[in-house]
Amino acid sequence: DNAHRIAVIAGDGIGKEVVPEGLRVLEAVASRCGCSFRFDHFDFASCDYYLQHGAMMPADWKAQIGGHDAIFFGAVGWPATVPDHVSLWGSLIQFRREFDQYVNLRPVKLMPGVPSPLANRKPGDIDFYVVRENTEGEYSSIGGRIFPDTDREVVVQETVMTRIGVDRILKYAFDLAQRRDRKHVTSATKSNGISITMPYWDERVEAMAALYPEIRCDKYHIDILAAHFVQHPDWFDVVVASNLFGDILSDLGPACTGTIGIAPAGNINPERRFPSLFEPVHGSAPDIAGQGIANPIGQIWSAALMLDHLGEPRAAALVLDAIEAVLARPEYRTRDLGGTASTEDCGKAVVDAL
Amino acid sequence: DNAHRIAVIAGDGIGKEVVPEGLRVLEAVASRCGCSFRFDHFDFASCDYYLQHGAMMPADWKAQIGGHDAIFFGAVGWPATVPDHVSLWGSLIQFRREFDQYVNLRPVKLMPGVPSPLANRKPGDIDFYVVRENTEGEYSSIGGRIFPDTDREVVVQETVMTRIGVDRILKYAFDLAQRRDRKHVTSATKSNGISITMPYWDERVEAMAALYPEIRCDKYHIDILAAHFVQHPDWFDVVVASNLFGDILSDLGPACTGTIGIAPAGNINPERRFPSLFEPVHGSAPDIAGQGIANPIGQIWSAALMLDHLGEPRAAALVLDAIEAVLARPEYRTRDLGGTASTEDCGKAVVDAL
Ligand SMILES: CC(C)[C@H](C(=O)O)[C@@H](O)C(=O)O
Ligand SMILES: CC(C)[C@H](C(=O)O)[C@@H](O)C(=O)O
Repeated sequence: DNAHRIAVIAGDGIGKEVVPEGLRVLEAVASRCGCSFRFDHFDFASCDYYLQHGAMMPADWKAQIGGHDAIFFGAVGWPATVPDHVSLWGSLIQFRREFDQYVNLRPVKLMPGVPSPLANRKPGDIDFYVVRENTEGEYSSIGGRIFPDTDREVVVQETVMTRIGVDRILKYAFDLAQRRDRKHVTSATKSNGISITMPYWDERVEAMAALYPEIRCDKYHIDILAAHFVQHPDWFDVVVASNLFGDILSDLGPACTGTIGIAPAGNINPERRFPSLFEPVHGSAPDIAGQGIANPIGQIWSAALMLDHLGEPRAAALVLDAIEAVLARPEYRTRDLGGTASTEDCGKAVVDAL
Repeated sequence: DNAHRIAVIAGDGIGKEVVPEGLRVLEAVASRCGCSFRFDHFDFASCDYYLQHGAMMPADWKAQIGGHDAIFFGAVGWPATVPDHVSLWGSLIQFRREFDQYVNLRPVKLMPGVPSPLANRKPGDIDFYVVRENTEGEYSSIGGRIFPDTDREVVVQETVMTRIGVDRILKYAFDLAQRRDRKHVTSATKSNGISITMPYWDERVEAMAALYPEIRCDKYHIDILAAHFVQHPDWFDVVVASNLFGDILSDLGPACTGTIGIAPAGNINPERRFPSLFEPVHGSAPDIAGQGIANPIGQIWSAALMLDHLGEPRAAALVLDAIEAVLARPEYRTRDLGGTASTEDCGKAVVDAL
């Protein structure tokens, strides 16, 4: 049996609405390309599961999904019933860390037909990757509180950067830039203000850049870099960033290209020792959940990233072409893009375009 | 002698070019309003000073400027000769901390005549404040490195939030919103990922909001909030944020309104136990320094914020009117605004408009 074994986790909110559209597209492209999938659905990593079981995941979650070829993930979080840090640290952040998915790869691309909030930008002008460190940095669980409920109350949390963790994400970014035309890496820093970890990040960037003389490497502090995303999105090719900075830049980038509703993410373990996870950049969006109006393109584009990772580049390219064709048609645009199409209308249109 | 005593520190790079324009405007408005200034110039808090003295400031810097009514500051940093964390932690960050300037107040406003990179936005659409915590949070000096130059190398840095520090910045933000029409506070958080300090921030926001029932209070995670700055800048009235998040948002906001070259900042000690410091949001900009092309409006607008703080609201309003008049005239626009005016042309135009 040559089928790709996929663990499917829809999660919460609009995750439950967009994942079925992603699966529909995967089935369609499989029949065109002669590949096949076995989908195993899991109900954990959701706030419903938490409310029933008192934990986001069963104790043996690693055994249940660790043998799959990839995880196709929707979104998690329902702050009305479970605090976000509980739901996220109990699921998505566990996957990233325990499956050592240390690369969070997020393409930012202005697509034909998608109205950009920026004036005077056209498809082709914006086309870059955010390469985000995905396991350490500002997302650490070390810290705590002392003197609660007094004037002396203090809360601390560590940022942790390791040589191994920083070097491997930088290497991934430089290798990616090496394969691209512009051969340009931009590092996000804040070494003027965050005075210990960020100068270290800069130091490792310099060391890595020395190994890639053909690559042009520059750096900006995160504040002005965010400004440049708005004012000069055409400057970027591969942007490498710490966990938190990458998180911010990979929502900001897609906002500049029209909507975070279409942005995909790959949480990748490049050594393939563990399954990688593919998900849209957007979250569970409680404000629009249950209405059938969420944009499924982020989920579908994530399916394309997954196909690439599974060694099905032709299928991935077909899905991307279908996405471009659909985005160009106003009648298939969901509300975030100024249209009136439903989640299902848009998903079916991608299938038809295939 | 009723003169306001101002400590003037031009610093590095374009700081040395824009500060004189700010002073020119202050002199002009003084003669119109019957107030007066005594300017004391200091050469420390600059990288030149560092190269001569081996420190950014003399040991008695607090005595030298601590008795002034305000500090009028340009920009500091010259990474080609002094690493940014050395120059900044040896000067600006010291001022903020030692003079307990715990509020960093940064207006974001789309001005008539300033071309915005956002499509379809006009003056009046964007008009809000970023209220940034300015003394603690992510900008702590606690941390260090272990196992240098080995595979085990680890670097850590603490984020530190105190009850007193968080509550006072929130109170400032809610009080400011109270005086505004929309009475709306937006809190920047990241409690889904930064799992210890940020849930604490949220908790204090909730406690403060309970004391201000007339104020509408919402919160967004920093990643989607950055996206909303681009897509819905009209949503915001008062945005309150930690030190790092406020730093990012207050460059991003001005980028959305056209240029960070016009954005001002007040580093304020509301209790007036110490001098407050007024500076443009932009930095020393080594890339354009020495060419006389920097936009002086950020510095001049900072002078207006300073006038307000010094109890000269009429003078402040006159300067703001003059800024608006000049920005509306294409011939006085500097290069960042697509024009060809020099720093001096633009500064003199503001004086003439007065
Ligand atoms: C220069 C730097 C340390 C500073 C900061 O991050 O606070 C600057 O970006 C600012 O916004 O005033
Ligand atoms: C939900 C949250 C913890 C997550 C993150 O911050 O990593 C999300 O914003 C993302 O970008 O995948």
